[in-house]
Amino acid sequence: MIRSHEAGTLRREHAGQRVTLAGWVARRRDHGGVTFIDLRDASGTAQVVFREEDTAHDLRSEYCVKITGEVRIRPEGNENPELPTGEIEVAATEIEVLSESAPLPFPIEGDVNVNEEVRLKYRYLDLRREAVGRDIRIRSQGAYIVNEVMREHGFVNVETPTLTRSTPEGARDFLVPARLRPGHWYALPQSPQLFKQLLMVGGVERYFQIARCYRDEDFRADRQPEFTQIDIEMSFAEQSDVLAVAEDLVRRLWRDIAGHEIGEIPHIAYADAMARYGSDKPDLRFGLELTEMTEYFANTSFRVFQAPYVGAVVMPGGAAQTRKELDGWQDWAKQRGARGLAYVLVQEDGTLGGPVAKNLSDEEKSGLAAEVGAAPGDAIFFGAGKPHATRELLGAARLEIGRRKGLIDEDAWAFCWVVDAPVFEPVEDDKGEQIGWTSVHHPFTAPKPEHADRLVSDPGSVLANAYDIVCNGNEIGGGSIRIHQAEMQQKVFDVLGLSKQEAESKFGFLLEAFKFGPPPHGGIAFGWDRMAMLLAGESSIRDVIAFPKAASGYDPLTAAPTVITPEQRAEAGIDVVPEDDEDETEAGAESAGA
Amino acid sequence: MIRSHEAGTLRREHAGQRVTLAGWVARRRDHGGVTFIDLRDASGTAQVVFREEDTAHDLRSEYCVKITGEVRIRPEGNENPELPTGEIEVAATEIEVLSESAPLPFPIEGDVNVNEEVRLKYRYLDLRREAVGRDIRIRSQGAYIVNEVMREHGFVNVETPTLTRSTPEGARDFLVPARLRPGHWYALPQSPQLFKQLLMVGGVERYFQIARCYRDEDFRADRQPEFTQIDIEMSFAEQSDVLAVAEDLVRRLWRDIAGHEIGEIPHIAYADAMARYGSDKPDLRFGLELTEMTEYFANTSFRVFQAPYVGAVVMPGGAAQTRKELDGWQDWAKQRGARGLAYVLVQEDGTLGGPVAKNLSDEEKSGLAAEVGAAPGDAIFFGAGKPHATRELLGAARLEIGRRKGLIDEDAWAFCWVVDAPVFEPVEDDKGEQIGWTSVHHPFTAPKPEHADRLVSDPGSVLANAYDIVCNGNEIGGGSIRIHQAEMQQKVFDVLGLSKQEAESKFGFLLEAFKFGPPPHGGIAFGWDRMAMLLAGESSIRDVIAFPKAASGYDPLTAAPTVITPEQRAEAGIDVVPEDDEDETEAGAESAGA
Repeated sequence: MIRSHEAGTLRREHAGQRVTLAGWVARRRDHGGVTFIDLRDASGTAQVVFREEDTAHDLRSEYCVKITGEVRIRPEGNENPELPTGEIEVAATEIEVLSESAPLPFPIEGDVNVNEEVRLKYRYLDLRREAVGRDIRIRSQGAYIVNEVMREHGFVNVETPTLTRSTPEGARDFLVPARLRPGHWYALPQSPQLFKQLLMVGGVERYFQIARCYRDEDFRADRQPEFTQIDIEMSFAEQSDVLAVAEDLVRRLWRDIAGHEIGEIPHIAYADAMARYGSDKPDLRFGLELTEMTEYFANTSFRVFQAPYVGAVVMPGGAAQTRKELDGWQDWAKQRGARGLAYVLVQEDGTLGGPVAKNLSDEEKSGLAAEVGAAPGDAIFFGAGKPHATRELLGAARLEIGRRKGLIDEDAWAFCWVVDAPVFEPVEDDKGEQIGWTSVHHPFTAPKPEHADRLVSDPGSVLANAYDIVCNGNEIGGGSIRIHQAEMQQKVFDVLGLSKQEAESKFGFLLEAFKFGPPPHGGIAFGWDRMAMLLAGESSIRDVIAFPKAASGYDPLTAAPTVITPEQRAEAGIDVVPEDDEDETEAGAESAGA
Repeated sequence: MIRSHEAGTLRREHAGQRVTLAGWVARRRDHGGVTFIDLRDASGTAQVVFREEDTAHDLRSEYCVKITGEVRIRPEGNENPELPTGEIEVAATEIEVLSESAPLPFPIEGDVNVNEEVRLKYRYLDLRREAVGRDIRIRSQGAYIVNEVMREHGFVNVETPTLTRSTPEGARDFLVPARLRPGHWYALPQSPQLFKQLLMVGGVERYFQIARCYRDEDFRADRQPEFTQIDIEMSFAEQSDVLAVAEDLVRRLWRDIAGHEIGEIPHIAYADAMARYGSDKPDLRFGLELTEMTEYFANTSFRVFQAPYVGAVVMPGGAAQTRKELDGWQDWAKQRGARGLAYVLVQEDGTLGGPVAKNLSDEEKSGLAAEVGAAPGDAIFFGAGKPHATRELLGAARLEIGRRKGLIDEDAWAFCWVVDAPVFEPVEDDKGEQIGWTSVHHPFTAPKPEHADRLVSDPGSVLANAYDIVCNGNEIGGGSIRIHQAEMQQKVFDVLGLSKQEAESKFGFLLEAFKFGPPPHGGIAFGWDRMAMLLAGESSIRDVIAFPKAASGYDPLTAAPTVITPEQRAEAGIDVVPEDDEDETEAGAESAGA
């Protein structure tokens, strides 16, 4: 190495040693003919002192330099107790500029409020900033821990293909033209789901991969076209076995990185999570549970509450809101597709205010505050309508109340498993009429054996051995025990309205594989970007991605995607459209050996 | 888990225990009303005995079963010392068929000679075969070791983008249409080269990644469109620092997986490797070095040897070859683009035979055998022509001789570093006239500082701080110290004849980054598929890839690539060709902030 020491490692005990450092000029101060420089490298910073005036005169911010000098104890009174190297300084005798720096588009040191596109365009400078560099290192530490834990548990680290066939997760695939088979296209995988199930058929028994996945969605604020998944699958395992491995992984990550020992992780049934928190990923850092009021208003004359479901959530101190704030909630609800958010204000004297109160009978009013646990000064928000959508609205209101009223302990970690999700959920048309079923997880999720006989007669009631792990209201992972028998798989496809031909075309090869003694199996996948974000204490996954893309998948750094040349088009066979008789269905059937 | 023990772990000390196993029916034998089954799982096999006739009567090969029974010591004389579980058997009392198996396309047990396309189509069955499963597990073990070593050395594990901009490695890119910017395309990376250099500019200092890479080449027998690279880059490092990390990685892999302690790894200069072995990746498991004969034949009257380079390689015992065998060498040479392979046979009496001998003077003949180290009975092969191509021909002949004469110890491991490669090599036209220069490694390779002043005046003489690591004649990794200064980079582009505009368009963002205090840096990348292949003792990388593709990038398992629908074409914006004024060069310039 061209240096003898890392700057951030120098301490009192190095005093008297001659050292060579290399790094960047973080700060420069000139004082009485003496130049002080904070020299920064990956380990931290050290103060370097140039006593001969001319040596350092042309050093500017972010020059990359190599300096040699003697470590000295700082003169009394000049120590910096906030810096690990604050007791020493290096008296420079030699300096070499390794490379100069042009003026910076934004400062590296200190907090800066820079437009994100500029930060991404100069991401290599952004990475020099302390917080950004730290986030990338936390993610790295996490990846090492993941490898360590999975190795201890005997998992086989297998790389699955990324130039493959469309996977059935339902989102749009990214496509890649295959030059050597003009008119044919690979798809980038949305997950290694099919391959990991094939590995189970192949007897691998314990599979693990940190897998890059791709989803061509309309990228919302915190979505990236490529993302990373910790992908796990086990044979001969029951739900509790998968959960044990997953919990060990999560515990180790939080212990080693966040310094937090996770206690027992509660299991909440999906139905309970929806009923109590209006969410399938409840934030358990605070209470404020929903109260179901359907019974309470069973005989109400208030038309709005004559609904299949009525629920309420309390806003502590919410009665003190201004008219404008209360109107704001109506807009908030409308943005979520609801008609509004009915509310009742519990006055300090216990009487009920707000427009809804007028529509309630005296009996309904008298017991209301007690029923929902509201105290004088609180507001009660109501939702009424179809159970699922209404609970989701109240769940969102609960979160919003938690945020506005500061009920969420930002230093807390609250984990839970949401279990026993339904296998199917209804598909509705524009008018809200059910027109079919779709998978809550994915079409390979096994129904609970004791529910299997209702699969056709009452699909909506069939629960799955499926599980999501939730941290502070974020779903960080999810999985299920899979179907491992072709007949059961076919039944599920039937409920989903997937024709034999469609099923065959999409994953005929999996059905074919299931003819050859597939083992019972199940697994889980963690969203690694989001986990790393939480571990780093950040609020955007872009903070833990070295080179994230901006909106619409544009990369301000490389300007990708770009136009291509006519030669590239021709060579890749992009404009070739194969003959009609060579359609996808047949190719699929061929692949499945049918 | 639905089993209590793994089959392959049962031993004498389990006798008397009631166990539940789950796995596959590997072999079945019926004998005197008793059924014996070899039950296989990932841990190995155990013999299961069914004494009640009807219990096991419908079990067939590769049924997936769960059995419960008592572990018993096998009756005397029935032990199988070749099996770790050979002292015991499990007397089954319960059996559950977890899933049945259709008749197999090829047997799982024993050696089978199956067409590779069939094996790949049913790869999940192929993976159940012992050797294939073992290879996948060796690769996994290797990946864990790589993570462990890089973590110990303080490297930051960083994931770089795979939906990115064309990289400059020179091979064809795989392209991905960007739906949200119709007419624009991402490229899949040929390596993370530019991103890892940007990470160095970003102060990461030690970067590591097991990176998926993509190259759209005409896939030769042992090439895959996607492949995996262990990618490493270090700042403030000199060549010896990179080599030390790389060697530690290689040593640990070979020690822990192959049980081999690698001794000191010799350094061979590129020029020496070419001169002595006719290869930049010499197989050092055997000697048989080339002898340069240019001086020896400096005044020859034999026209063929009046060449800028004449070299020879000896084939021990080669004089005994038949006329047909000797003619075969001529065809062999012609397949390599040479006109033939001149030879002289050293007869048992020391006289020289073969057609070339007639053309040599007595003086030339008399010293010849001694000069090349040939003994009576040997053949001497000659090459004459341009040095590089002729040495390569003789190097290939050396390898072929080694193979044919059994000179290669298949159990040996011979490593070397090939160092001091030239920065540039000539580009020749069809007639062999030099028309320019190209990079031996890639355009970011730094010239040795002491050669930098010859960069323009004599590019061919400029050597690089570049290094390849070679194992048994396979290049398993390579890297270099990089250029870290924009001016030097520009000079190299000039020699390569890359216009400012081209350079700007291809990697303007790297040149831009180099304006902001880039550190000196260097790195290495290992071809992980090939390394895993060597560690597994296999001869094809397909053996260590879970789901490899067949020729032309076709996947017999999923039938990828497939045709796509007109809707997919339209949605992905595949047929959109942007306006003229929005060409790639401008996009590049824009990205570089120029």
